[in-house]
Amino acid sequence: MQTLADIGEDELIRRIVRKLPQGESVLAGPGDDCAVVHSARTPQVLKTDTVVEGVHFTTETPGRLVGRKAMARVISDFAAMAATPRHALVTLIAPPQTAVKRVLDVYTGLQALATEFGVSIVGGETSKGQQLILTIGLSGHVTGPKWIARSQARAGDHLYVTGKLGGSIRSKHLRFHPRMAEAHWLAEHLPIRAMMDISDGLAQDLPRLASASGLGFQVDLADLPRTPGCTPEQAWGDGEDYELLIALSPKTTAKQLTAWAQAFPKLKLTRIGKLVEKDQAPLVPSGGWQHFRSA
Amino acid sequence: MQTLADIGEDELIRRIVRKLPQGESVLAGPGDDCAVVHSARTPQVLKTDTVVEGVHFTTETPGRLVGRKAMARVISDFAAMAATPRHALVTLIAPPQTAVKRVLDVYTGLQALATEFGVSIVGGETSKGQQLILTIGLSGHVTGPKWIARSQARAGDHLYVTGKLGGSIRSKHLRFHPRMAEAHWLAEHLPIRAMMDISDGLAQDLPRLASASGLGFQVDLADLPRTPGCTPEQAWGDGEDYELLIALSPKTTAKQLTAWAQAFPKLKLTRIGKLVEKDQAPLVPSGGWQHFRSA
Repeated sequence: MQTLADIGEDELIRRIVRKLPQGESVLAGPGDDCAVVHSARTPQVLKTDTVVEGVHFTTETPGRLVGRKAMARVISDFAAMAATPRHALVTLIAPPQTAVKRVLDVYTGLQALATEFGVSIVGGETSKGQQLILTIGLSGHVTGPKWIARSQARAGDHLYVTGKLGGSIRSKHLRFHPRMAEAHWLAEHLPIRAMMDISDGLAQDLPRLASASGLGFQVDLADLPRTPGCTPEQAWGDGEDYELLIALSPKTTAKQLTAWAQAFPKLKLTRIGKLVEKDQAPLVPSGGWQHFRSA
Repeated sequence: MQTLADIGEDELIRRIVRKLPQGESVLAGPGDDCAVVHSARTPQVLKTDTVVEGVHFTTETPGRLVGRKAMARVISDFAAMAATPRHALVTLIAPPQTAVKRVLDVYTGLQALATEFGVSIVGGETSKGQQLILTIGLSGHVTGPKWIARSQARAGDHLYVTGKLGGSIRSKHLRFHPRMAEAHWLAEHLPIRAMMDISDGLAQDLPRLASASGLGFQVDLADLPRTPGCTPEQAWGDGEDYELLIALSPKTTAKQLTAWAQAFPKLKLTRIGKLVEKDQAPLVPSGGWQHFRSA
C-alpha cells in the first residue's frame, strides 16, 4: 500500500489537482500562492467548517463519504443563508502513514458534491498531523432577493423544520443532501424571518437561533417529525440532521404552505412550535452536541 | 486551570467573539451560519493555510505567537500575489484538556496581526482533536495595478530575494513580518514577472516557481544572502523564511533598484541567479521542507 510518506507532498498535490476541474470564474486555481477568481456584485458569503477523524467520522468511514460530508456541511451552511457557494479551499491534515488511495478517495467525494452544487475547488493546503482532518473554506455570494440571518426572527413567528429528525448517526450524517434548492425556494416564496441548518441537534441549535433574535421558544417534543424508529428525545437531541430550521411570519398563508408541498412533494415542512418573548419561554430538556464537553 | 472541557463550545466561542472587532465591510460576522461581507469590484483572492502543533510550533510555543504565525503565513501568501487581504475565517482544533487561556492567547495573536493588516476575523469553527491546529481561510482582492502569479516568468529573468535566508527556526518563523508593503511596491515600481513567498525553503520553492513558468534556474549558493551564522546550505535548504522570491525582467534598471533601496533602506534586495530554459538548468543540491516525507 502506497502511503503519503512514500510519495511526499508535491506528488500528492499533483495527483489531487489533476482531478479538480475549474469553473469559468477561476482566474488562477491551485498551484499559486493564492487563488484568484472573478468577483460578484452582490455581497460575498464566507464559511469554514471542519471534519475530524474520531469526531465526525471514523477510520472505517470510506474516504469518498468523508469528502462528501465535509463539502456537504459547508454547502448546507450556505443553504441556511439562502446564499450560493462558488469557490472552495481545502485543507488536509493527515498522518504520513495514510494510504494515498484514501486521500484521493476523499477528494473524489469532495469533488462529486462540489460539482453538483457548482463549486470549484480553487486551492488548498496539506500538512502532516496525528489524525485525518479536512477543513473546507467556502466563498460565494447572495444570489436571491435577500440573505437570511438567524437574528431577524420576531416573537410570534412560527417554527418549522424540513424533513425528519433524529438517528442521523445510522447513515444520514454521511449521505445527507444539502437543502439548497429548498432554502432558495423558501427565501423567494415564503415570509421567512430567520433560518439555520440543524447540525448540532435541535436541542442546541434552536436555542442559538432564538438567542440570536433575542427570543425564547415553545416546542412540544411530541410535534417533532421523527425518523422512523427514533424517540421524540432523539429527534430533539441527536445531532447532524442538516435539515433547515425556519422561522416564518405568523401571516404565512395556507396557500403558501400548499405551494411548498407542490414544489417539494417528497419533503415535509413541519410546524414544531413558535418563538416567544424570553420571559414566556418554558424550560426545555437539554441535549444535542457540544464540542469539548465530556460525554 | 480552566480547560475547554470545563466551559464547552458555546462559552468558548462567546469569549473568543467578543474580542473580535469587525470592519465596516462586514454585514454579518461571527454568530450566523456564514459571514456576509461587501464585495469588491476587482478580482477576489482566496487562500487557506494551517499550522499544526508538533509541526509548525510546539506545545511550548506561547499561544500568542501561534496565532500570530498562523495569520502571518496567509497574509504572506497575499503579499506574494501583491493582493490585499480583508476577511478571515479561523478553524480551531484543540484537545478538550487545552487551557482556555491558551486558546484566548492564540486569538490575541491572530487578532493583533489581523488588525495590523486591515483584516477582519468574520467567522470560524471549532472542534475537538488530538493536537492544536489552526487553519486560516483568507479572502481579499486585487488592489494594485495587477496581481503577480508564479507562472509568468521568462527565460533570462533575474532572480531576487528580499532579506536574509536560513536559520528561521531560531525565532523568525514565529515573528516574521509579512512583506506586504514591499510586494505592493515591487508590483507598482519594478518590471516584475513572477513572485512567491519562501515558506518551505528556497530549495523547494524556487523549483516550484521555475516549474510553474515552464523553466529551469541557475543559482550559485555562494550568492545567497545569509542570516548571520548560517551556511550557504542552510540559506538554501532551511524553511520558513517568508521572504519574497522575485523574477524581474532583465531590463530592470539600476535606477529602479536604487529606488527600492530608498523605499526600504533596511531590507536588501539581493540578486541570486536567473531563470533559464529547462535544458540549460544545472543540477542543484536538494533540501527544504516536504510534508509527509520521512526525515
